Amino acid sequence: MRERSWWGWGYDGEGLADAELDALARTVSARFALDGGRAVPPEPSELGLGAPRLEAPPALAPIADAGPRTRAAHSLGGSYRDVVRALRGQIDHPPDVVVFPRDAAEVAAVLDWCSSAGAAVIPYGGGSSVVGGVEPDVGEGYAGVVSLDTTALRGVVEVDAVSRAARIRAGTLGPDLEDGLRPHGLTLRHFPQSFECSTLGGWIATRAGGHFATGPTHIDDLVESMEVVTPAGTVQTRRLPASGAGPSPDRLFLGSEGALGVVTEAWMRVRPRPRWRAAAAARFSSFGAGSVAVRALAPSGLQPSNCRLVDPLEALVNGAGDGRAAVLLVAFESAEHPVDAWAASATECLAGVGGMLDADPWAVSDDAASPPGATGAWRRSFMRAPYLRDGLVRLGVLCETFETAVTWDRFDELHHAVTAAVRDALAAVGAGEGAVTCRLTHAYPDGAAPYFTVLAPARRGDELSQWATVKEAATDALLGAGGTVTHHHAVGRDHRPFYDRQRPALFAQALGAAKRALDPAGVLNPGVLVDGASPGPAPPGAPPGVAWGQGRSDGPAPEGT
Amino acid sequence: MRERSWWGWGYDGEGLADAELDALARTVSARFALDGGRAVPPEPSELGLGAPRLEAPPALAPIADAGPRTRAAHSLGGSYRDVVRALRGQIDHPPDVVVFPRDAAEVAAVLDWCSSAGAAVIPYGGGSSVVGGVEPDVGEGYAGVVSLDTTALRGVVEVDAVSRAARIRAGTLGPDLEDGLRPHGLTLRHFPQSFECSTLGGWIATRAGGHFATGPTHIDDLVESMEVVTPAGTVQTRRLPASGAGPSPDRLFLGSEGALGVVTEAWMRVRPRPRWRAAAAARFSSFGAGSVAVRALAPSGLQPSNCRLVDPLEALVNGAGDGRAAVLLVAFESAEHPVDAWAASATECLAGVGGMLDADPWAVSDDAASPPGATGAWRRSFMRAPYLRDGLVRLGVLCETFETAVTWDRFDELHHAVTAAVRDALAAVGAGEGAVTCRLTHAYPDGAAPYFTVLAPARRGDELSQWATVKEAATDALLGAGGTVTHHHAVGRDHRPFYDRQRPALFAQALGAAKRALDPAGVLNPGVLVDGASPGPAPPGAPPGVAWGQGRSDGPAPEGT
Repeated sequence: MRERSWWGWGYDGEGLADAELDALARTVSARFALDGGRAVPPEPSELGLGAPRLEAPPALAPIADAGPRTRAAHSLGGSYRDVVRALRGQIDHPPDVVVFPRDAAEVAAVLDWCSSAGAAVIPYGGGSSVVGGVEPDVGEGYAGVVSLDTTALRGVVEVDAVSRAARIRAGTLGPDLEDGLRPHGLTLRHFPQSFECSTLGGWIATRAGGHFATGPTHIDDLVESMEVVTPAGTVQTRRLPASGAGPSPDRLFLGSEGALGVVTEAWMRVRPRPRWRAAAAARFSSFGAGSVAVRALAPSGLQPSNCRLVDPLEALVNGAGDGRAAVLLVAFESAEHPVDAWAASATECLAGVGGMLDADPWAVSDDAASPPGATGAWRRSFMRAPYLRDGLVRLGVLCETFETAVTWDRFDELHHAVTAAVRDALAAVGAGEGAVTCRLTHAYPDGAAPYFTVLAPARRGDELSQWATVKEAATDALLGAGGTVTHHHAVGRDHRPFYDRQRPALFAQALGAAKRALDPAGVLNPGVLVDGASPGPAPPGAPPGVAWGQGRSDGPAPEGT
Repeated sequence: MRERSWWGWGYDGEGLADAELDALARTVSARFALDGGRAVPPEPSELGLGAPRLEAPPALAPIADAGPRTRAAHSLGGSYRDVVRALRGQIDHPPDVVVFPRDAAEVAAVLDWCSSAGAAVIPYGGGSSVVGGVEPDVGEGYAGVVSLDTTALRGVVEVDAVSRAARIRAGTLGPDLEDGLRPHGLTLRHFPQSFECSTLGGWIATRAGGHFATGPTHIDDLVESMEVVTPAGTVQTRRLPASGAGPSPDRLFLGSEGALGVVTEAWMRVRPRPRWRAAAAARFSSFGAGSVAVRALAPSGLQPSNCRLVDPLEALVNGAGDGRAAVLLVAFESAEHPVDAWAASATECLAGVGGMLDADPWAVSDDAASPPGATGAWRRSFMRAPYLRDGLVRLGVLCETFETAVTWDRFDELHHAVTAAVRDALAAVGAGEGAVTCRLTHAYPDGAAPYFTVLAPARRGDELSQWATVKEAATDALLGAGGTVTHHHAVGRDHRPFYDRQRPALFAQALGAAKRALDPAGVLNPGVLVDGASPGPAPPGAPPGVAWGQGRSDGPAPEGT
């Protein structure tokens, strides 16, 4: 049976082989001076995690694991700083125990236990957070930390073929979810880069961005109803195609990052597997020129399934281009009708804004096989990227991504400001040879989601400080240029200070009040979105161990201009 | 200058002329026995509204109006029971004063005054609520009621042509909004039936359903950012095409029905005016057969702008058919490309599920004139319907609509159950000759929004009780069959008891907590969504006049099965 890597992406033994790492080192050395070192992850038993401060009560003992490997694997997510720390054996905040509830009742029992014991609870799905969303760094005042792993809540449990909806348990990993739908001829069409090692519940809790580059793409739009277990009880929303009955209950929990409750299952909108597909690549003289094409395609009503613009350097790195042109990957898919007319309209649109296309640009396919042409190559490279990243980190390369979304009127300014800020910051931390590239991952009529990749030679031992400097400069720049702190990576603990600047202060107060209604003891994922320690007085029955009222203040700064 | 009718739809002098009313009476008499009476609305000065209990402070006096006509016009919305009461001169809950703030600062001043005076505030846009959303029926414990009319906050104030977005003040009525966008070649494409007499702020506060029958159609999806003035301060969300940074602040206020704050302006996603259009009508042997076609078209990716199925009797009444077939109106529109391929795919789809189409079914248009074919006729009838309704009420006809949304797997059951419940209830109240018809107004991949119209002879003086019986039976049936209490009419006061059964109890608690954070004195639209009187202890500074803690309990019943 495959075992998940405790320190990096994916599964043990499926990362880069030694020969692949050698080849990668040769490639990178052409650009960066590497020290020749190759970090090797320690064994979990050597990490010195310390004795657990908590023990699961007898009723929960059968679903609890306090072994070092399990604790280590639930100590970090998948960000650059997480991988760096794991390779160093630096586990700053291990959970005391990991529990694997098998149904909603067991989730409720875990929350009851933690609320009464004053223990923090970190909901944990696939562990792919790149923003510190699952790291048990909860601050003072808790009797311990329990990582609540949802992956025993798995499977597609009911399919409504008439409504094209499926009831799916929240801990189902991407591949298992698609495996469960495939016999019905259905698919969710939600393929974040973390697909292999992330769960439906994680996607919902973080408002994941998915497969489609245009149209409804966030998981938000695919949720028909959900079940959420909170310390105060269970919320079951009604299956509805749409509703105008007050603010949407689902939307309160979408993006709540485990701070309001644990999503245990959801009815999801699914669809038949696509039969007709077409894909093309258009080249543009610059990233800016390509962005004009994206801005033309996004509101056209054509709704391409792929509409991803890659800047010249990134195209060179991932093989989509020769480094001289920006490359726009466009694709259409349908289960219902041929897409020729859509492709023809897109060709006309692209040519009209300076796109360079081959004479017969569209690779087409009329079965449900893997997507045609450049899109297929791009997809395979995309899904393999996290393994590559781990290899780069082992070689001593600073390698991280961040993303945002911004309206078109400020897009050029944001792209310029962020790129300049990252370059300046890299120079300031002694990594001036580093590069920053950009692609547009999602396109909207009123804006786009730029996704930045930073590659630079790191100084061993100093990586966290180097990255912190770059990250702060980048985020300052993107917030200043009107972007959001995250389009689909979530807030977590890493983005929290920036999120506090972005969100309206009164919304923070309203959200904090909602949290206190659902999580009176303040045990759920403290520090993510809202502080576990409430600014109000302790409610009746709050455990004495919780530092009630002593947390960081919620978002006092007004919305920036 | 046109003056709004104080008692019914639209503008004085634009309702049915006497000759039109005569013709209507003859038509209706063929089916129902009418008493020959013709109710006439009283003059506002004859209503005996009583002296105002409140007077605006001197600083707000210039924007205040306590005259009987203005008070009367802000006493009721536009439902059947509202029109019946207005025609009787039965004004149960007049506001004490109406204020017309001209900017966000004046809105804040009104909320400050009301919070300190213990007066309830009813945000009022176009006054088109059909669910008691603007009626000052706030319960005991308030020093008075202020109706806050937003229509002095009007106009399109900024257009971002690059991002296709416009900043629009919340009190802008539909026609003024489109007038403001037209010089820029832009349109919001949001045309609820109340378009002429409803405002952007009202659409946002009630999650209005719009023009498009498929795809993103609720106003929710068109909001880029908003400004909301609450008693605790102002919330300004960030202009973003999309974001994954925590639960969406906008979504908390979308559907908040004036209970959390007053929307003062919003950046809205707009689009070029359509150039290519095509429209067709397909007939089906029954409403059920037609619904199968809608269920096939909705998830096809074709996204018809119109996809409205009308049952045989309703088609007969509104002239779309001969009463023997259900009629499905389908249309496409685009500002970017011809829609022939879309129309051809739709023809194939409709024919494949038993649709009867003419040999050359598509009426096409390639300019921005009014839509072609049956869709245009339907639109004109649709926009004129509220005037017709007022005429019917004057003649003594019970005439009301209600709507819901339900997943496809339960659609047939819901349609049958609701129709049967209404027929039984009509018989029980002595109106067995009455009819109930249905159309599908919006179609989703996983379900549809059925919209019911009830027409029956009313018993003068007994109309409210008759309708209450029918409404309760209908709503019981639709909730029991898995529907929502409202797809786009909102909750208001009329749906509140049913909404309390539908929404999860814990969500009600979270929403109530959020309200207390934003509206500590509980003055905003009390009784709508959450009670003004909080279940918690009075916060510091709560006015003694407010019945804090004595309100109706918030949604104690769990979500139904």
